Amino acid sequence: MIRKQRLLTPGPTPLYPKALYAMLGAEIHHRTEDFRQIYKTLLSDLKEVMGTRHDVLVLVCSGTGAMEASVTNCFSPGDRVIVCSAGRFGERWTEIARAYGLNVTILEEPYGKAVAPEAVEKALAANPDTKGVLVQATESSTGVAHDVRSMGLAVKETGALFIVDAITGLGTMPLSIDDWGLDIVIGGSQKSFMAPPGIAFLSISEKAWAAMETAALPRYYFNLKRERKMAAIGESSWTPAIALLLAFAEALKYIKTLGMARLVDNAQQLARAMRAACAAMGLELFAAENPGAAVTAIKAPDGMDSGVIVKEFRNRFGSVIANGPGALKGRIFRIGHLGYFDFPDLFAIVAELELILQAQGFPVNLGDGVNAVQQIYSELAIRNKETARA
Amino acid sequence: MIRKQRLLTPGPTPLYPKALYAMLGAEIHHRTEDFRQIYKTLLSDLKEVMGTRHDVLVLVCSGTGAMEASVTNCFSPGDRVIVCSAGRFGERWTEIARAYGLNVTILEEPYGKAVAPEAVEKALAANPDTKGVLVQATESSTGVAHDVRSMGLAVKETGALFIVDAITGLGTMPLSIDDWGLDIVIGGSQKSFMAPPGIAFLSISEKAWAAMETAALPRYYFNLKRERKMAAIGESSWTPAIALLLAFAEALKYIKTLGMARLVDNAQQLARAMRAACAAMGLELFAAENPGAAVTAIKAPDGMDSGVIVKEFRNRFGSVIANGPGALKGRIFRIGHLGYFDFPDLFAIVAELELILQAQGFPVNLGDGVNAVQQIYSELAIRNKETARA
Repeated sequence: MIRKQRLLTPGPTPLYPKALYAMLGAEIHHRTEDFRQIYKTLLSDLKEVMGTRHDVLVLVCSGTGAMEASVTNCFSPGDRVIVCSAGRFGERWTEIARAYGLNVTILEEPYGKAVAPEAVEKALAANPDTKGVLVQATESSTGVAHDVRSMGLAVKETGALFIVDAITGLGTMPLSIDDWGLDIVIGGSQKSFMAPPGIAFLSISEKAWAAMETAALPRYYFNLKRERKMAAIGESSWTPAIALLLAFAEALKYIKTLGMARLVDNAQQLARAMRAACAAMGLELFAAENPGAAVTAIKAPDGMDSGVIVKEFRNRFGSVIANGPGALKGRIFRIGHLGYFDFPDLFAIVAELELILQAQGFPVNLGDGVNAVQQIYSELAIRNKETARA
Repeated sequence: MIRKQRLLTPGPTPLYPKALYAMLGAEIHHRTEDFRQIYKTLLSDLKEVMGTRHDVLVLVCSGTGAMEASVTNCFSPGDRVIVCSAGRFGERWTEIARAYGLNVTILEEPYGKAVAPEAVEKALAANPDTKGVLVQATESSTGVAHDVRSMGLAVKETGALFIVDAITGLGTMPLSIDDWGLDIVIGGSQKSFMAPPGIAFLSISEKAWAAMETAALPRYYFNLKRERKMAAIGESSWTPAIALLLAFAEALKYIKTLGMARLVDNAQQLARAMRAACAAMGLELFAAENPGAAVTAIKAPDGMDSGVIVKEFRNRFGSVIANGPGALKGRIFRIGHLGYFDFPDLFAIVAELELILQAQGFPVNLGDGVNAVQQIYSELAIRNKETARA
């Protein structure tokens, strides 16, 4: 039988078709007016979409590169930073900070839980020399979202910078960058932004720029001050990934038309529907308390290896979902619904999941999960009609 | 909310992604060895996929162009042909034949019914001067399939040519071209062949080539004898649509790997599942007796305009389905499932249809249709497992 490949991981995500096709225009030189116009539009669209007055810069690297850039450009050896660590990507903050000789205070929560804003407040009070607080807006290894608003407002009162890895957070949750005191917000092209991986970006507040004046960590490729100067003339410091920038620019045009609020709402409603489907199928969520909208982490039923579920999705349907990270491998599986993703995608995935569970001997009525998704779709259709009428 | 566009008409159909990307290689000249190698491989793959020892030629035109080519290359003014007419495309045969001054005997059945092979036998007996019998393997305007096997075996016994428009038939039903006496079989790139529209093709028997020796209808662009000569050296008569040929060649590679029998089975199982879903939702099929696997034609429930269903698919979900043709507009709607189409596609479409019907006040339990599709998927999964084990 025909089996189409479908990407349902927390990233890379399904590509916006016009973004994919735009890569064909890559035969332009990056030190020409043609490129400068495209790049300036991209940066201005990205700024609009992120909803910030801060500078927004683009880097050719994965999201991890931008995480490193935010550390190396803002701090000096021995500086104290607080890391909110509630999963794989929290651990990555610690690894980066330690690799550059920072003094790391870790606020750790077990996988599946979120770090409470109060814990950040307390740690800041206990460590008045703190230069930065590093967090994930959504921890896609576990499906958890952090309350970055409360954290941001707390950090704002101190001299510390609040640095938010929003790689899967942007486009899946509201982020009022300027109002909430989010000094650096990091995103990636391959998440809600519907483009292939290879492009990361950051918004940078005045407070962060000021900190960079004295920051002494070594850096070269990721030099944000240099990048800002180049961006002002519509160029990037180094030869950029032109094809990927064209894809990203095209996706941004679409997101601008759609509106960031609707993109966020789309992900949140899909996430809500996915959770409702899980409840209807008798499946337990892994992050029941603070679920993010980028990805839903689901516990494998007792006695069932989540790796089998991942494999069956792949083998039966060509659908690529994610296993649990690290010690959670075999125990949970994760289904993404961020970016270019719609309700019919979810109808299909849930029908697939029902069939897989049934074939594995888990008691599920075929159609129950799909029905839950349909119910939420119907509610929304009524809501949207009323909104349009009002 | 995000709404992806999905093509669910009887054609054009969803594109095989690698076929789409292959169009980028279009910067080759058509009178070079590079092109000749590609074209020769394409023709040989196409012949293998069609499962025939007959010549197979490619034309740059829609399927209608190849229908015309089969008429103008095989007949002379005043020749008698029998047209099996059971829908829009049957009527097209009559239009073409009359445009070229042929003497047309029409075997007509109302939309939704098929012409019986016995009617062809009778007409041949009553008109021994018949030079050709023209038919649709599947009449995609109504969703009906013709018994071309029985017809072919009957025509084979006479001096007439049996010309089959299999534009939506190829890849959705078994067609033993050589054994059943199918003298000309016509296909198109944009149906089961997963490529964009613009390429048509025909298999041509020795009996047809012999008829062409005396055929006197006027022709120029569609000159099959000339095309055969050019194909022998790996070229086409006129400047070909290189990008489309590259797409078509790539799709053929995939179909070769998949196997034509499995492509046909895929469409037939999806069609069966679609019919089961209709039964579960309480919907009536339009072509209940001889349903083809290319497209399922479904009656709109009493008092409901099928145009509303078509519009709702588009507006709510971005899914493009087809209304009824001509007088059936408003009464039936048609959902394609030929070519690059899989079960998760069907899970989603049926979930969409349930929601649309419910919103229009038709009593349907959300999930009933999807469940019927899931049941058939499960049966097949077991069958395929057993086949693999045997």
